[in-house]
Amino acid sequence: MTDVVVIGVGQTAYGMVPHRTLKDLFADAAVDACAGVDKGFDPRLVEEAYIGTLSTGGSQLGNFAPLMLEAAGMIGASAVHVENACASGGFAFRNAVLAVASGRVRVAVAAGIEKMSDLPRERNRLWLGVSGDVEWERLAGTNFPGIYGMIARRHMHEHGTTKAQITGVAVKNRFNAIANPKAQFRKALELEDALKAPILADPFTLSDACGITDGAAMAIVCRADMAHSFTDRPVKVAGSGAGTDYVAVHDRDSATRLDAARRAARDAYAMAGIGPDGIDFAEVHDCFTIGEILAYGDLGFCEPHEAGRLIEDGTTRRDGKRPVNNSGGLIGKGHPIGATGIGQIYEIVHQLRGTAEGPGRQLANPRRGLAHNVGGSGGSVAVHILEACA
Amino acid sequence: MTDVVVIGVGQTAYGMVPHRTLKDLFADAAVDACAGVDKGFDPRLVEEAYIGTLSTGGSQLGNFAPLMLEAAGMIGASAVHVENACASGGFAFRNAVLAVASGRVRVAVAAGIEKMSDLPRERNRLWLGVSGDVEWERLAGTNFPGIYGMIARRHMHEHGTTKAQITGVAVKNRFNAIANPKAQFRKALELEDALKAPILADPFTLSDACGITDGAAMAIVCRADMAHSFTDRPVKVAGSGAGTDYVAVHDRDSATRLDAARRAARDAYAMAGIGPDGIDFAEVHDCFTIGEILAYGDLGFCEPHEAGRLIEDGTTRRDGKRPVNNSGGLIGKGHPIGATGIGQIYEIVHQLRGTAEGPGRQLANPRRGLAHNVGGSGGSVAVHILEACA
Repeated sequence: MTDVVVIGVGQTAYGMVPHRTLKDLFADAAVDACAGVDKGFDPRLVEEAYIGTLSTGGSQLGNFAPLMLEAAGMIGASAVHVENACASGGFAFRNAVLAVASGRVRVAVAAGIEKMSDLPRERNRLWLGVSGDVEWERLAGTNFPGIYGMIARRHMHEHGTTKAQITGVAVKNRFNAIANPKAQFRKALELEDALKAPILADPFTLSDACGITDGAAMAIVCRADMAHSFTDRPVKVAGSGAGTDYVAVHDRDSATRLDAARRAARDAYAMAGIGPDGIDFAEVHDCFTIGEILAYGDLGFCEPHEAGRLIEDGTTRRDGKRPVNNSGGLIGKGHPIGATGIGQIYEIVHQLRGTAEGPGRQLANPRRGLAHNVGGSGGSVAVHILEACA
Repeated sequence: MTDVVVIGVGQTAYGMVPHRTLKDLFADAAVDACAGVDKGFDPRLVEEAYIGTLSTGGSQLGNFAPLMLEAAGMIGASAVHVENACASGGFAFRNAVLAVASGRVRVAVAAGIEKMSDLPRERNRLWLGVSGDVEWERLAGTNFPGIYGMIARRHMHEHGTTKAQITGVAVKNRFNAIANPKAQFRKALELEDALKAPILADPFTLSDACGITDGAAMAIVCRADMAHSFTDRPVKVAGSGAGTDYVAVHDRDSATRLDAARRAARDAYAMAGIGPDGIDFAEVHDCFTIGEILAYGDLGFCEPHEAGRLIEDGTTRRDGKRPVNNSGGLIGKGHPIGATGIGQIYEIVHQLRGTAEGPGRQLANPRRGLAHNVGGSGGSVAVHILEACA
């Protein structure tokens, strides 16, 4: 297997930008990614591209990939549109890595994009349900706030997790977002206010959920043995794992763990030759606060019943022993669905290169970061481990 | 690079089956594919899956891949939904091949599915346009019959191709479909009747177009060095190529060739170490009759001005020197969008194994077959070359 490295990453500022087109956003991410390749990068070098999106902006329903490549100056390359709900970006990244690992492709890109502001409010509400099991969950009247709310209640019941611990995830991540110039929600959230916010779905208030976001991100990967013609700071893809599970939560063995995430983590750790202890920091999928609590257990950072404590004792704060969602996560940085998994890679690469923007955001010499990207309520999950090259 | 072989293929009979669900169709294709593995195959061996579809049956808009894996007994595997318009299947196959070639994955499946009968007539008409350039083609009032019609007129102008030659593609392919038990349109079409049929879009009559079809198909691939534990008749993936082009035809250098197909063919031939002369038979993308005429030129079977003659002199008939669309092609066999590219692989694998069903359909000891799968009007194209193992 050919070793694979990331040589450049790009991302738009996340937020609501109804005046900018899908192509604008994609081009911005591509220009940023190419500019991030220190020694220069010609977009025509790209041989294979994977582009993650769920809604395709609501208009270009077919052949989405070549249309985006046009905007990036990469037309001609083999390209495919990848859809795995909110994990579209993570799976796009996995496939770019596999393509280069095959030895058939020298340079590939993984990108993600979502322009939710182009969709009417009704359709944006629908996204909350279309990635669960439509027949058994959505048509029964529930949607993601309800599904994740039930998971949260069950976690409280089985593991003694408290509402304050769960909502503490949002407080931490919103704090982290303040310093991130590319984050959407850069305003502090107090725990007291969060608990008093309007109810979304028991036990969640509005503060427990991510928002509606436009954004795009891109990562350029290549064979490790070509990296130094592009950059002196390549970042190694040390591990890649992915898995699926029953889409409807009631079909699974447990509601308080995501087996797809456990499979993905197991494979990523095995490939990297490390365990959870080898991870210095992580970007995880906190579409709802409980998502980050689940991630702590599924990634082996602790046992499920200890997950709430990691929030309480500050272990996963920026200044803690193992920072999680230093970028602000989905709740603070924003969650432009298809872009999210690539935005995680963007954050990790910058941290490993020592180039994270924003006051006090750069971690002290981290060696390995992990990205955890969940589709729906865990129907599909991708996990990647990136490593600073010595 | 690890060599990759096909060990089993499955396909539903193509047609309109409104009483069967998406999951039914997918399961049928999976059962057929597993049964096609001579020494038996446990679906839980699948490690990576690529599932091509455009419309997702109109309901499960997100996380489509795990839902289909559930129906196939393959849940747990890493899986991704791939969308490249009518080339979704071909790109799913390419990615399964790259995944196994990477050495990270031992067994992968590529599948495709479309249930067009679940969509209202209006949406089925829309598919005719959503995979072209929505802003510059569909919103200007044209759709695929119109776009391909203009391409046909231009081919007649530039290369002297005649309407009878173009429509001769439909006559040939409908004849071929009669003997194929899994084809949708098993009734002969006379050239005279075809030319007198109602006008669809000049110069096309209804006979020049494919229909509306439900169907699913699956191919199981694995590392070549594992093949003999599954079958004594593996089929080698000798070549894989893919490319993209501007989605709107007016942005391209020429309207009478598909540069994405030429790139894809160039890479597939290079990987296989052969030229067009090494191809014994082909399944090509005749969504409209002119599509097959374009393919002859783009695949190097002849110069573009000679393409019409290949129909006239019978070169590409079942009993000709190089049969094309012996299955019936999209026009005769049917075109369930996402499934089509995998259905081509299904036909080629059976021909190379000597197991093509239907009276007189089996070709005499073919060695290599080529699959040519076009997304939209050529925005994305995948080409594969399969080879009988000696």
